[in-house]
Amino acid sequence: MRIGVYPGSFDPMTNGHLDIIERGAEVVDKLIVGVLVNSTKHPMFNLDERIRILTAGTGHLANVEILPFHGLLVDFLREQDAKLVFRGLRAVSDFEYELQMAQANRNLYPEMETLFLCTNVQYSFISSTIVKDILRHGGSIQHFVPESAIKIIDDIRRNQDGPADGN
Amino acid sequence: MRIGVYPGSFDPMTNGHLDIIERGAEVVDKLIVGVLVNSTKHPMFNLDERIRILTAGTGHLANVEILPFHGLLVDFLREQDAKLVFRGLRAVSDFEYELQMAQANRNLYPEMETLFLCTNVQYSFISSTIVKDILRHGGSIQHFVPESAIKIIDDIRRNQDGPADGN
Amino acid sequence: MRIGVYPGSFDPMTNGHLDIIERGAEVVDKLIVGVLVNSTKHPMFNLDERIRILTAGTGHLANVEILPFHGLLVDFLREQDAKLVFRGLRAVSDFEYELQMAQANRNLYPEMETLFLCTNVQYSFISSTIVKDILRHGGSIQHFVPESAIKIIDDIRRNQDGPADGN
Amino acid sequence: MRIGVYPGSFDPMTNGHLDIIERGAEVVDKLIVGVLVNSTKHPMFNLDERIRILTAGTGHLANVEILPFHGLLVDFLREQDAKLVFRGLRAVSDFEYELQMAQANRNLYPEMETLFLCTNVQYSFISSTIVKDILRHGGSIQHFVPESAIKIIDDIRRNQDGPADGN
Amino acid sequence: MRIGVYPGSFDPMTNGHLDIIERGAEVVDKLIVGVLVNSTKHPMFNLDERIRILTAGTGHLANVEILPFHGLLVDFLREQDAKLVFRGLRAVSDFEYELQMAQANRNLYPEMETLFLCTNVQYSFISSTIVKDILRHGGSIQHFVPESAIKIIDDIRRNQDGPADGN
Amino acid sequence: MRIGVYPGSFDPMTNGHLDIIERGAEVVDKLIVGVLVNSTKHPMFNLDERIRILTAGTGHLANVEILPFHGLLVDFLREQDAKLVFRGLRAVSDFEYELQMAQANRNLYPEMETLFLCTNVQYSFISSTIVKDILRHGGSIQHFVPESAIKIIDDIRRNQDGPADGN
Repeated sequence: MRIGVYPGSFDPMTNGHLDIIERGAEVVDKLIVGVLVNSTKHPMFNLDERIRILTAGTGHLANVEILPFHGLLVDFLREQDAKLVFRGLRAVSDFEYELQMAQANRNLYPEMETLFLCTNVQYSFISSTIVKDILRHGGSIQHFVPESAIKIIDDIRRNQDGPADGN
Repeated sequence: MRIGVYPGSFDPMTNGHLDIIERGAEVVDKLIVGVLVNSTKHPMFNLDERIRILTAGTGHLANVEILPFHGLLVDFLREQDAKLVFRGLRAVSDFEYELQMAQANRNLYPEMETLFLCTNVQYSFISSTIVKDILRHGGSIQHFVPESAIKIIDDIRRNQDGPADGN
Repeated sequence: MRIGVYPGSFDPMTNGHLDIIERGAEVVDKLIVGVLVNSTKHPMFNLDERIRILTAGTGHLANVEILPFHGLLVDFLREQDAKLVFRGLRAVSDFEYELQMAQANRNLYPEMETLFLCTNVQYSFISSTIVKDILRHGGSIQHFVPESAIKIIDDIRRNQDGPADGN
Repeated sequence: MRIGVYPGSFDPMTNGHLDIIERGAEVVDKLIVGVLVNSTKHPMFNLDERIRILTAGTGHLANVEILPFHGLLVDFLREQDAKLVFRGLRAVSDFEYELQMAQANRNLYPEMETLFLCTNVQYSFISSTIVKDILRHGGSIQHFVPESAIKIIDDIRRNQDGPADGN
Repeated sequence: MRIGVYPGSFDPMTNGHLDIIERGAEVVDKLIVGVLVNSTKHPMFNLDERIRILTAGTGHLANVEILPFHGLLVDFLREQDAKLVFRGLRAVSDFEYELQMAQANRNLYPEMETLFLCTNVQYSFISSTIVKDILRHGGSIQHFVPESAIKIIDDIRRNQDGPADGN
Repeated sequence: MRIGVYPGSFDPMTNGHLDIIERGAEVVDKLIVGVLVNSTKHPMFNLDERIRILTAGTGHLANVEILPFHGLLVDFLREQDAKLVFRGLRAVSDFEYELQMAQANRNLYPEMETLFLCTNVQYSFISSTIVKDILRHGGSIQHFVPESAIKIIDDIRRNQDGPADGN
């Protein structure tokens, strides 16, 4: 069985991520979306929330699994018995960082392979950073995030804001 | 009346910014310099100081107005009844971020247009970051910032440093 | 009256070109599409054909004019009493060449200004080269070239091929 | 059966090409190396020679097949019942052209997918152009081309030069 | 005597840094490695530790000296009576930042010159950030850092971790 | 004696070339400008003319010598007993090609070193291609080419045009 891993922060998932997940899931038998537990950043959504959003957004894909991981990607690959990593490419700045990471990872785990997909142009300008910026200022994210994920995001945001409004 | 907006942090204004302001002001009837109120960074100059420096540096331009804004650029454009945004391009790394933002903004406000000007080569290596670095270490910013703005910066810095020295 | 020039080879016009023409025409009172007469290349379409295709593809735009030019762009601008040039940006490689040309042109004609628009993402992968490659191998260009221009291209191609097939 | 295609000119094959072929062959059940018949360029090696060199250089790979193709890549994919295309990425300039082609191809054949691999750093500076330049001036290509392919290249070059020297 | 300076944070030194140091030391009579004292970041290794690691890693080079510096690079150059600066180039993103800094520095000190070397491909994917990431998660840095420096890093890390374990 | 080589086509020399020649000549004891004899292109100026223009433009530099070379750069370096090569960097597209060539050259001749200088911003948009384009259309090259070289270019052009005008 060919297992692929698509690693990222997904804070939150976007239509660009969904594009890569759907297309990666066509290439392998099972695609694991690896959600990086990164203690040093200040995410808008915590790990559980990011996984709930991804689960809602990928519910229509039978061979996709959402799993958290921390530490080095190569260790997560070994644990999951996976050798293929998927990454989306949008821009030149993505490209250089991704190439550097792919080379460093192959140095640490020579059996692995990174497969790059180019993000569909209609999602090429979407990033989690822009989604968070719009959310913070009350704008509409309907072209940026999958329909099924928006409901979960709205729920979470209502609860995040709730205490702040009432205390 | 054609109204343009040139948004940025301007912490502080540089000769590169002035170059874009002067040239943008030729293309429209009124150019609004929108100074982003960004609470998450730690600017060297606060909003009032950044506006004072810009006001001094653009005093010779009749159709330029300095205004603060917070939130999404597209909301500021709607408030100001402006459809044209000016951005300066210096390097490839600028370019990709700017293109992504321009596409995202058009998605949120399809009537708007972003016009990119290429910064005059003699200012292409100047950035607010470099100016702040020179200021922190007591170097001379005379080739980097408009003459009329330097006086204001010197005033502000003298007052900023005062308390730290013990007074 | 604000006059803009959008220069290029247009061999042939694409949906990406039309995007820039439509948006440039919003920013100025009159937009001149300047079709470069370049004797050193081997175009698929000659000057008359390229102008016919452009005329068909821009027929819905009242303030757009199609004109040939040869020699230096700055001389064409002076002749047309135009100071604004429009250029579309798609990729980093475009960007660097365009920046270099914009700087060189300003050196030759300091009153002019080049305004860069970023091509709509849905047309960002389209180029005249790809259209010609598809035409040569009998593929369909319907997502690549304006509907109204395709008919003219088909006419021209039928006549180009005619003699070769039958004589 | 998962079939992949690795298209190119291969004039001649290099160690960088072999790297992508070996790694692509791990990801699919059969990898077809598609040698583009391009009548408009002036190759150093004709189609037969390029196929002979590739055949020698990939003799150790059981699931690799060398085939010529002309016309559009998407037509070749349909003929071969293949949906996966492999491309190697070395530099930013590669990247932009490749992204543009991948997007254009998906527009013509939405079921296909382009998988990009990053060329191993030790081959990242090797190109067919450099190999030809070294061959023309009598330098050594031993670090640039697979051992088994060098013999074929030497044979071909001896025959190419032969008539010129003696007849 | 030709004196060169190779400035950086070196948090910690990598094989990529050593490559530039060895090659820069061939071009000048004396090469000063300038270790930037930067109070605003949170380095993994403090100034003394970074200097110890560099000293161990460059022990085999007779004309290399390790010195700390703070403030502007141009002031450090004047103090050391040096006019040549060495910088390694790996990727396009490096390149643009480096070019901007080189131009700004020449503006502040016209007699100086920045010489760029391209990092050997086998080290092109190595950075201090990746080394720190591997160290944090207990991976092996043996292909990333000079042998002689690894011992010092291990010593320092053992002492850093000691108190956290309960002592 | 430290000998450097600055290789190129110089068809014709520009102010950007002169900038690199002047600065490279400061770093070494002797700088050889290597003029590539390239039979496959169609230069505007033949080898003798390119050398005459360079000789005029560098007459003020005592340690600069102009020499033709053909074949591989590494062979020319060995002939001249030179180990240092100078190259100017203007843009990202330059950078990638130059990096690739520098790596390939080191592979063929490990003792050599390529030193990159960043072209002064005021010359960053100048290229031989633009100069030729201006010359062809009768524009002024006075900001693009050294004063002393312009006279030679004018002489050569007058003689080139002469026969065409008179027969």
